Amino acid sequence: MEIDYKNIKVIGFDADDTLWVNETYFREAENEFCKLLSNFETFNKIDHELAIKHMQHLSLYGYGVKGFMLSMVEVALELSNNTVSSKTINQILDIGKEMLNKPVELLDDVELVLKELSKKYKLIVATKGDLLDQERKLEKSGLLDYFHHIEVLSDKKEANYSKLLNHLDIKPSEFLMIGNSLKSDILPLVNIKANAIHIPFHTTWIHEQVKASETNGKVYKTINTLKELTELLN
Amino acid sequence: MEIDYKNIKVIGFDADDTLWVNETYFREAENEFCKLLSNFETFNKIDHELAIKHMQHLSLYGYGVKGFMLSMVEVALELSNNTVSSKTINQILDIGKEMLNKPVELLDDVELVLKELSKKYKLIVATKGDLLDQERKLEKSGLLDYFHHIEVLSDKKEANYSKLLNHLDIKPSEFLMIGNSLKSDILPLVNIKANAIHIPFHTTWIHEQVKASETNGKVYKTINTLKELTELLN
Repeated sequence: MEIDYKNIKVIGFDADDTLWVNETYFREAENEFCKLLSNFETFNKIDHELAIKHMQHLSLYGYGVKGFMLSMVEVALELSNNTVSSKTINQILDIGKEMLNKPVELLDDVELVLKELSKKYKLIVATKGDLLDQERKLEKSGLLDYFHHIEVLSDKKEANYSKLLNHLDIKPSEFLMIGNSLKSDILPLVNIKANAIHIPFHTTWIHEQVKASETNGKVYKTINTLKELTELLN
Repeated sequence: MEIDYKNIKVIGFDADDTLWVNETYFREAENEFCKLLSNFETFNKIDHELAIKHMQHLSLYGYGVKGFMLSMVEVALELSNNTVSSKTINQILDIGKEMLNKPVELLDDVELVLKELSKKYKLIVATKGDLLDQERKLEKSGLLDYFHHIEVLSDKKEANYSKLLNHLDIKPSEFLMIGNSLKSDILPLVNIKANAIHIPFHTTWIHEQVKASETNGKVYKTINTLKELTELLN
């Protein structure tokens, strides 16, 4: 079964790693963090503990850089048996602040594709994460004018999307979601009978990875570049 | 000039310190923080430095507990000249986690008033702060069913409210905002010719305080308790 493009009225775009680089900055930050703590543990162990802590904290802190910063501080205290220096804690805070102040690096052809599609479709952004972070990135991106509506969701589960479609007053068959995460941008949409196109990014956060059994039998399309969208949707 | 109640279609409620206790928990946390650092500085100095740091960080971290936690850690490092112990850093993180896990303590008559007003008006929540925090508090509050719509804003300036009214598809004269902060819930509304009723809470965060000159000549109503709303709006 193919997507019936002529039904589509609204196209939703994920933001991080779909419109602009994000995961790469987290990887870089993790590397810096591991280097800072290299006196206490192996790189691998530090990286692993941080990943676990970050995920454990998601329900408390939610997605975004601030929760990640708090997790880094806590892992540093734990792995050093409370002997980490104040200097190192300061450096950890600086890693986070640097992430928040990064410029927005658009992925290839984003502007061209949005310009083209906005002539024919209503475009929205549907992103999860920290409200202020995401608004700031959109502002910096220069892409705001292409979007009719920005929706920052606290999570991207089926219920969040159903609420969004309700709010947009459209049927699932009239909505197409574009994103890099199978777990957050694709499967929940397929499950509520909306449409989804997957554009993989070169790194995927472990929290966003799904087992093959979860995608088995699900109908969605995978493309390699954003630019292919203009051909599919014209 | 009085508010013309018969025009009102939608009533917006601020959440923190309007529907439930919030500022009190920040005050308690500040006290605990000052006690933790009492070896390094006077209570007054610590409290002052934390207030300044928290406000300086608002543009970077936004409103909410996580940014407050990160500010506490940074102030502890600074005021101790980087000699604060890891144990204290851990205790600071615990102060923040406790704040996030607090039960929601409704203010007097909230449920009664919402029940009454929801029969005649469309009610919404318009709150600033952390998306996840605010959704969690609304969930815990048991009040979700009274509200047609929940809007978490990254800030509460005139432009944020204009966008909200646009989105609700109503005229400013048809909107009434209820809240405890003159700066965030009242003055921006008055300035865009919408209606506002101020219900002071017993403590106001210094960041939310306004000078007398700012309220001079502005038309809004002040009442002492939420319950008075049912008389005004019936």
